[in-house]
Amino acid sequence: LERSSTLGELGEFGLIARVTAERHQPAATLLGPGDDAAVVAAADGRVVACTDVLVEGVHFRLDWSTAEQVGRKAAAANLADIASMGARPTALLAAVAAPQDLPAEWLEGLASGLAAEAAAVGAAVVGGDTTRGELLTVTVTALGDLEGREPVTRSGAKPGDVLALAGRIGWAAGGLNVLSRGFRSPGALVGAYRRPQPPYAAGRDAALMGVRAMIDVSDGLLADVGHIADDSGVAIDVDTTALPVPEPMRNAAEALGADARNWLLSGGEDHALAAAFPPDVLLPEGWRRIGTVSEGAGVTVDGHRWTGPTGWDHFVKE
Amino acid sequence: LERSSTLGELGEFGLIARVTAERHQPAATLLGPGDDAAVVAAADGRVVACTDVLVEGVHFRLDWSTAEQVGRKAAAANLADIASMGARPTALLAAVAAPQDLPAEWLEGLASGLAAEAAAVGAAVVGGDTTRGELLTVTVTALGDLEGREPVTRSGAKPGDVLALAGRIGWAAGGLNVLSRGFRSPGALVGAYRRPQPPYAAGRDAALMGVRAMIDVSDGLLADVGHIADDSGVAIDVDTTALPVPEPMRNAAEALGADARNWLLSGGEDHALAAAFPPDVLLPEGWRRIGTVSEGAGVTVDGHRWTGPTGWDHFVKE
Repeated sequence: LERSSTLGELGEFGLIARVTAERHQPAATLLGPGDDAAVVAAADGRVVACTDVLVEGVHFRLDWSTAEQVGRKAAAANLADIASMGARPTALLAAVAAPQDLPAEWLEGLASGLAAEAAAVGAAVVGGDTTRGELLTVTVTALGDLEGREPVTRSGAKPGDVLALAGRIGWAAGGLNVLSRGFRSPGALVGAYRRPQPPYAAGRDAALMGVRAMIDVSDGLLADVGHIADDSGVAIDVDTTALPVPEPMRNAAEALGADARNWLLSGGEDHALAAAFPPDVLLPEGWRRIGTVSEGAGVTVDGHRWTGPTGWDHFVKE
Repeated sequence: LERSSTLGELGEFGLIARVTAERHQPAATLLGPGDDAAVVAAADGRVVACTDVLVEGVHFRLDWSTAEQVGRKAAAANLADIASMGARPTALLAAVAAPQDLPAEWLEGLASGLAAEAAAVGAAVVGGDTTRGELLTVTVTALGDLEGREPVTRSGAKPGDVLALAGRIGWAAGGLNVLSRGFRSPGALVGAYRRPQPPYAAGRDAALMGVRAMIDVSDGLLADVGHIADDSGVAIDVDTTALPVPEPMRNAAEALGADARNWLLSGGEDHALAAAFPPDVLLPEGWRRIGTVSEGAGVTVDGHRWTGPTGWDHFVKE
């Protein structure tokens, strides 16, 4: 791509295909970018599929994240959903609507970020679409392989199960708060917002250990654990003594006059995994106990009804 | 859904899942809407996948198309891509970014259109995402099953092959022209723009008959045949005596002072299929000969270089 070009000058044909075609494709990519559709291996005769859309100004800002970071974030949101089914991601497709004056190198950066995040789990970008649209919108679809296992849904939790968490929570919410107030540090929080690091392998590990229900924490721990409770027909209590506020988060919250506990309990976008394990299971590496499952309905925090925010709904104005 | 609600009032959680969950799911849907991801059968160990984004004001207008028509159109664009690989569509995923004041019933109509078009080919909407975004954007991903066959790419055409077409061309372009000038008739053209009717079965039929290269005509016949020529390393000549201008199209073009031949040769969005067949093949039902493949490069029309428009590039302002 020419460095100074805009999308409008280059035209749309195959832009995503062009920037991804030369990248390494894993063995699962049977037909990569550049045709009407891609072909991906689905070895056990099934494919796991999900889609997620990021909108400029809602999910990312061009002055807060680089193109590569937006690509990684869009990929991570979907790859974490595949992981939460207990599957191994195999492929991504990316559809981008972008203003005509967007520099083509921004799209190249986006494709780099998508490809890098996919490569980190052994997957690749196998196709896409680019079109004109005055609002920059990045929609990613991820495909995955269950490797012969049953999918892990939200509905299998049983009374007596252990609620467990893999990955970080609250860091991205802290970073978003910091950026929203016009600051750029602490770097640990801002970096977590810019580039989530979901515990991809923990999903497959949990499936191998007989996890009963699992979800990607993308809307906030309480909201997403609430989906497990609702779909499984159980009550879940979150034990905050198992969720100490990390030092950088505490310091940043104090400086901003915010409540770090809200970041932990209702912040999404770190893409942690939350799951219900049978009580006798030794939790796999990276998982820690954060609560209990019992008969009943709804989610409580330390045994009490939670009155703070529960999560993030992109349609409800804040 | 409550009739008078807006997306902002309803919130985003599972809106697409809610409006699609109760619909019939075919046997290929192993896990339908409502979890972090869906699971779809991929019987021969491979899955075909493509994605396509429609943007309000670029690909559709709310005063020109109903929500259901936009849903059908978004589905058709992707289902035709699956068909052009010689595959059978199995599933759709839909990601929607929408303004908060969009009536929820519009999204319900969109979901109805997506589901109806999918059902017409035995597929279903298995998942989706809905989020806030000031510009209405509909991104659909389609999955398909090759049923043990090799995928039909753009690169297999050989000198001596017959260029053939299934489905209509120029009708949607005519309809768009009519609507753009402020008219609502003739209905045949406007209807074609509002609801494309791709020849889905023709793709699979062509694959069964040994077609060598195939493409979904979404950007215009000459542009898309050009992709076959480029990727196959051949020259293609389009014979316009095989492409007579239909009566309603001729009349509308005359009334508008437009050239109906341009609609035929460079109009997309009917989602016809164009393909190169070996010279000795009896063309399957619905296919007709429209040109020839020879040694060389590029696309000609009746043996001459074409100086009119070749197709539709959404990034290049007209």
